[in-house]
Amino acid sequence: MKNKISFKNDYSEGCHPQILDALIKYNLSQQDGYGEDQYSLKAKELILNKLNSKTSKVYFVSGGTQANMLVISSALRPHESVISAQTGHIFANETGAIESTGHKVNSVNTPNGKLSPSHIQKVIDEHPLQPHQLKQKMVFISNSTEIGTIYSKKELEDLSAFCKSNDLYLYLDGARLAQGLTSENSDITLEDISKLTDVFYIGGTKNGALIGEAIVINNPELQKYFEYYIKQKGAMLAKGRLLGIQFLELFKGNLYFDLAKHANQQAMLIKKAFTNIGCLYMSETFTNQIFPILNNLQIDSLSKDFDFYVWKKIDENNSAIRVITSWATKDKDVDIFINAIKKLS
Amino acid sequence: MKNKISFKNDYSEGCHPQILDALIKYNLSQQDGYGEDQYSLKAKELILNKLNSKTSKVYFVSGGTQANMLVISSALRPHESVISAQTGHIFANETGAIESTGHKVNSVNTPNGKLSPSHIQKVIDEHPLQPHQLKQKMVFISNSTEIGTIYSKKELEDLSAFCKSNDLYLYLDGARLAQGLTSENSDITLEDISKLTDVFYIGGTKNGALIGEAIVINNPELQKYFEYYIKQKGAMLAKGRLLGIQFLELFKGNLYFDLAKHANQQAMLIKKAFTNIGCLYMSETFTNQIFPILNNLQIDSLSKDFDFYVWKKIDENNSAIRVITSWATKDKDVDIFINAIKKLS
Amino acid sequence: MKNKISFKNDYSEGCHPQILDALIKYNLSQQDGYGEDQYSLKAKELILNKLNSKTSKVYFVSGGTQANMLVISSALRPHESVISAQTGHIFANETGAIESTGHKVNSVNTPNGKLSPSHIQKVIDEHPLQPHQLKQKMVFISNSTEIGTIYSKKELEDLSAFCKSNDLYLYLDGARLAQGLTSENSDITLEDISKLTDVFYIGGTKNGALIGEAIVINNPELQKYFEYYIKQKGAMLAKGRLLGIQFLELFKGNLYFDLAKHANQQAMLIKKAFTNIGCLYMSETFTNQIFPILNNLQIDSLSKDFDFYVWKKIDENNSAIRVITSWATKDKDVDIFINAIKKLS
Amino acid sequence: MKNKISFKNDYSEGCHPQILDALIKYNLSQQDGYGEDQYSLKAKELILNKLNSKTSKVYFVSGGTQANMLVISSALRPHESVISAQTGHIFANETGAIESTGHKVNSVNTPNGKLSPSHIQKVIDEHPLQPHQLKQKMVFISNSTEIGTIYSKKELEDLSAFCKSNDLYLYLDGARLAQGLTSENSDITLEDISKLTDVFYIGGTKNGALIGEAIVINNPELQKYFEYYIKQKGAMLAKGRLLGIQFLELFKGNLYFDLAKHANQQAMLIKKAFTNIGCLYMSETFTNQIFPILNNLQIDSLSKDFDFYVWKKIDENNSAIRVITSWATKDKDVDIFINAIKKLS
Repeated sequence: MKNKISFKNDYSEGCHPQILDALIKYNLSQQDGYGEDQYSLKAKELILNKLNSKTSKVYFVSGGTQANMLVISSALRPHESVISAQTGHIFANETGAIESTGHKVNSVNTPNGKLSPSHIQKVIDEHPLQPHQLKQKMVFISNSTEIGTIYSKKELEDLSAFCKSNDLYLYLDGARLAQGLTSENSDITLEDISKLTDVFYIGGTKNGALIGEAIVINNPELQKYFEYYIKQKGAMLAKGRLLGIQFLELFKGNLYFDLAKHANQQAMLIKKAFTNIGCLYMSETFTNQIFPILNNLQIDSLSKDFDFYVWKKIDENNSAIRVITSWATKDKDVDIFINAIKKLS
Repeated sequence: MKNKISFKNDYSEGCHPQILDALIKYNLSQQDGYGEDQYSLKAKELILNKLNSKTSKVYFVSGGTQANMLVISSALRPHESVISAQTGHIFANETGAIESTGHKVNSVNTPNGKLSPSHIQKVIDEHPLQPHQLKQKMVFISNSTEIGTIYSKKELEDLSAFCKSNDLYLYLDGARLAQGLTSENSDITLEDISKLTDVFYIGGTKNGALIGEAIVINNPELQKYFEYYIKQKGAMLAKGRLLGIQFLELFKGNLYFDLAKHANQQAMLIKKAFTNIGCLYMSETFTNQIFPILNNLQIDSLSKDFDFYVWKKIDENNSAIRVITSWATKDKDVDIFINAIKKLS
Repeated sequence: MKNKISFKNDYSEGCHPQILDALIKYNLSQQDGYGEDQYSLKAKELILNKLNSKTSKVYFVSGGTQANMLVISSALRPHESVISAQTGHIFANETGAIESTGHKVNSVNTPNGKLSPSHIQKVIDEHPLQPHQLKQKMVFISNSTEIGTIYSKKELEDLSAFCKSNDLYLYLDGARLAQGLTSENSDITLEDISKLTDVFYIGGTKNGALIGEAIVINNPELQKYFEYYIKQKGAMLAKGRLLGIQFLELFKGNLYFDLAKHANQQAMLIKKAFTNIGCLYMSETFTNQIFPILNNLQIDSLSKDFDFYVWKKIDENNSAIRVITSWATKDKDVDIFINAIKKLS
Repeated sequence: MKNKISFKNDYSEGCHPQILDALIKYNLSQQDGYGEDQYSLKAKELILNKLNSKTSKVYFVSGGTQANMLVISSALRPHESVISAQTGHIFANETGAIESTGHKVNSVNTPNGKLSPSHIQKVIDEHPLQPHQLKQKMVFISNSTEIGTIYSKKELEDLSAFCKSNDLYLYLDGARLAQGLTSENSDITLEDISKLTDVFYIGGTKNGALIGEAIVINNPELQKYFEYYIKQKGAMLAKGRLLGIQFLELFKGNLYFDLAKHANQQAMLIKKAFTNIGCLYMSETFTNQIFPILNNLQIDSLSKDFDFYVWKKIDENNSAIRVITSWATKDKDVDIFINAIKKLS
């Protein structure tokens, strides 16, 4: 049963072997706890160097929901809310993590998972009755988004300027940041992200680490006391070295970006195969997620040998499926999958 | 500077090599996420077998503060509080994690870090003005305690019976459970703990794992929906396999207990050396933590080559230090330390 | 400036004179605090008699947002959410009160402010990924609704049955319950409401009291400990008599319903005047709120002598206004207003 | 049964007749809701005039627990705690209201219910392990205290200076502020309180109002957005006029202070009677609360005709009782009580 090839997640395997090697190499060195180990310190330095930012600070945590909860709940005062696309992870898929910290997520419908200034303005306009309504104080975006799309530099600049002029923090969820930045269509760099947002995170879990997201706080007013929140919410690992060592390996060379590039390339090969048989897509993506629309027979056929999510029902006969690749997706498995796709038409 | 030998923590090193071997071995196997991997499922089965419990359930999370926050906040209703010793980790060292979920920790002063029925009764007696005062609903204990002491089976039975008859949940923090159970003075088994508590956790981080605590919920009414909380509080790892593989290695044989036994033995050797030079102790311990009282000159002298916490000032001239050993404490380092202790007298 | 006649709110005046008389009459009688006074006890008895319910309990609090916050946050566990119409007060107008207690409000778009089983089913269907999504556990409705509409007995019965079979609590916000029940089109009684809901509240503030809402909990599992929440959230008045005396006067005869009937009748007179000049309405109402659509010139004209809200922009030239009447709306003022309306055409 | 004379509370009666007269007089005037009525605006102006402060702002809420919850939860960030005496209302008697907003109350044992800089320093000293422990950010005191004692101007100045130099907000709970300020031993004025604290409240409920406390925020950084919290926590009354009218009457002349003076004088007469028969006291008070220590026979004897709390067991044979007087305590009842006391000896 378990011998299907899986395109279900980008967290189906363990971690890149280079990380395992480093865990072995440093295993018995005695280090201070709670993120004060030398690997964490060094990894933070490496990341800051890539950002070319003098004022940013880096904090390592275990996962994406945890990162979102920490960033949002520490930035907002009780009367403030965060704006998200309806497809945003914090709105749709985190079991109310943000609300559980006391904050409402104001959602906006957007076809491609991305927010623009007009979306934000719309939400603000719906809240004229202050103080009987919440004050919007943060905008949550993701890049690549939950449905695989990416922001252009222009779009991000516009959003950033709009947020600044409306006293809104801009927060970018980077669970799949590497996949976004290395997409063939992207014109954004890590340094751009750092300049254009108040806070973002660099996802490790979905790009070759065992666990780990690097929260980068660019806005100094959000840095104060952030360590307290990490501890208070149970997110401070005693053996912080586990996070430090992983990001050290990912960022000491170009590994972090190479792994994502590999994932994207595999997805694009598969996408081409779907396009060749005439498929349309739920959203137009150039990252490691693709959402081809198939009819039910095609889905049943593919399901026999491959594992993936049926993502969204389009009509009685057709649904979009999600195919996702990762740093670990093998050429051989892609070939087998492409052959199966060819047989669908 | 960093070449001092450290007796500061039991989380200064990485993890037991057998765990690293397993991480390598299983690394590329594709697994379902969020704890549905086969390693997690198998590890839970192994643990339940050792508990000999048909109704308990096991949940893996990353750390102790996280475990405490999850267990307590999911068990209590908003008007309910938890009772803890003043030395209890939830009262003293978790940056208000429990209060941040809306619940008060009622503290009791107790000389040895342990709670007895009379301590609990005292707290209840201080709250006669219901509903103007909180209702106590849970008792938090730890074994071994934060200051190294352990409960006898009789003490735990009495506490358990008292809690049952007073409609209180009994929760045992097992950050150092293995060290408690393998102490030369302990007469408690893992099975006893499971029978006598509503919920407890089996600590991995401080006993040879990279991260990981196994929460065991024995009381079925606390099991319902617990997975929602794990997700909501950001504690559900996408690669749950990281936790599963570790507990699989710790529990497939006797590794979990062997590691703790080693830690305890090293501590007892050091304790003997302190006793031989006439030291008294802040608390009488038979686990991997010892708290010898030294004068300031002795502390300065030891500090030159060894790293440890000065735990509690006794008077102007004397303080208790904390010396802590772990699964990784080497015989050679213990010998060097004992030699240094001998020179103190 | 302040001599405009106001149709802006149903809380623009103080309270019905009979209540003031009672406050004077009982003023110096020494009573126990915190709702244990004899007036509160008697008023609760009177209300329960009207409900013909043996198991319901009554709790007095100060206002509607407070009632909503108390009921919802005490009924839900952290992983549970409440479903509301987008026009629902808890979703739109309470500064995130519900989210501030940790719970998400799942909203549904509905043209007339009312929820039906199909709306609820839609929300449930959007949450298949348990435990990665919240569990819906309560349905929030209001009667009359925030836009003046009312439920028929059949509609309420269907909703109640659907909630029961889907393990959902049904909660009815009765800020304007009297106006709903005494509407010429209503076929529901207070007793029906008690039978068909798990919990509801009887609004006093908007129907002749100075402050005060009577929360009626019909479902015994929601009664346990409710007094703790009232105290904990700062809603327990030391001089509970202030609430008790008011509800005593409202319910010892038929005053509560008479006041609402008056308000509704005045609104219907005004509605007739708007209809006579050919107005359409934003929603079709038979309670004390009407939402005629006027053009901008008409609105400006009416604004000179009358105070009301411009509620919703329909297009560049037209908006719906809200005209609201109360127990205190004088015949004379209605006449003046009707004359002004006649001149609009 | 109910014809005992009660010295149990200072909220046993309704309100001062002058307030009832004003409620009648202004009853039918149409006013804006939510505290924007002209009475509230005027009352705030009167209070600010007495404070002689250009930067303070006044906010009316319903009760003391509500005021405490609002002030503390809006001032503190999630990682911050508030320091209170163990007898402090927020620590002992509010069903965990503060913790329910996510904040720990650090308590200190103090014999007379008052805090000094050394108490505060002690709490800070117990929290050296930042960020593993909470940061103290506010000091909570009450005047008069929960056990009837008062601060001298010198004590309050010292505390204020200490708080300023330690980056702590000073908050004074004035549930019985008038009784404190009009005590024969007090050398503090309302203006002093305003100068020496960041925020305090002027208690109405226990000094002749039906409900109502006037929160005065002196520190501008705590004023921002405070109205949002009032609304969010369900504390904003639709008919804010009810609060405004009461404080208007209390502060347009000297009524507020006259009522408290009366209460204090009645208490001092009773105290003299207890002293005359040789009573000692649990705490030395010159306000409207006295705590004479009586033997069990004496308590039983007094209980026959009078209602009061047995406050604290001293030993098997003796307890302190609480006798409390109010603006409404009649000379005749005091005489009867004094006669009964005389017969105790």
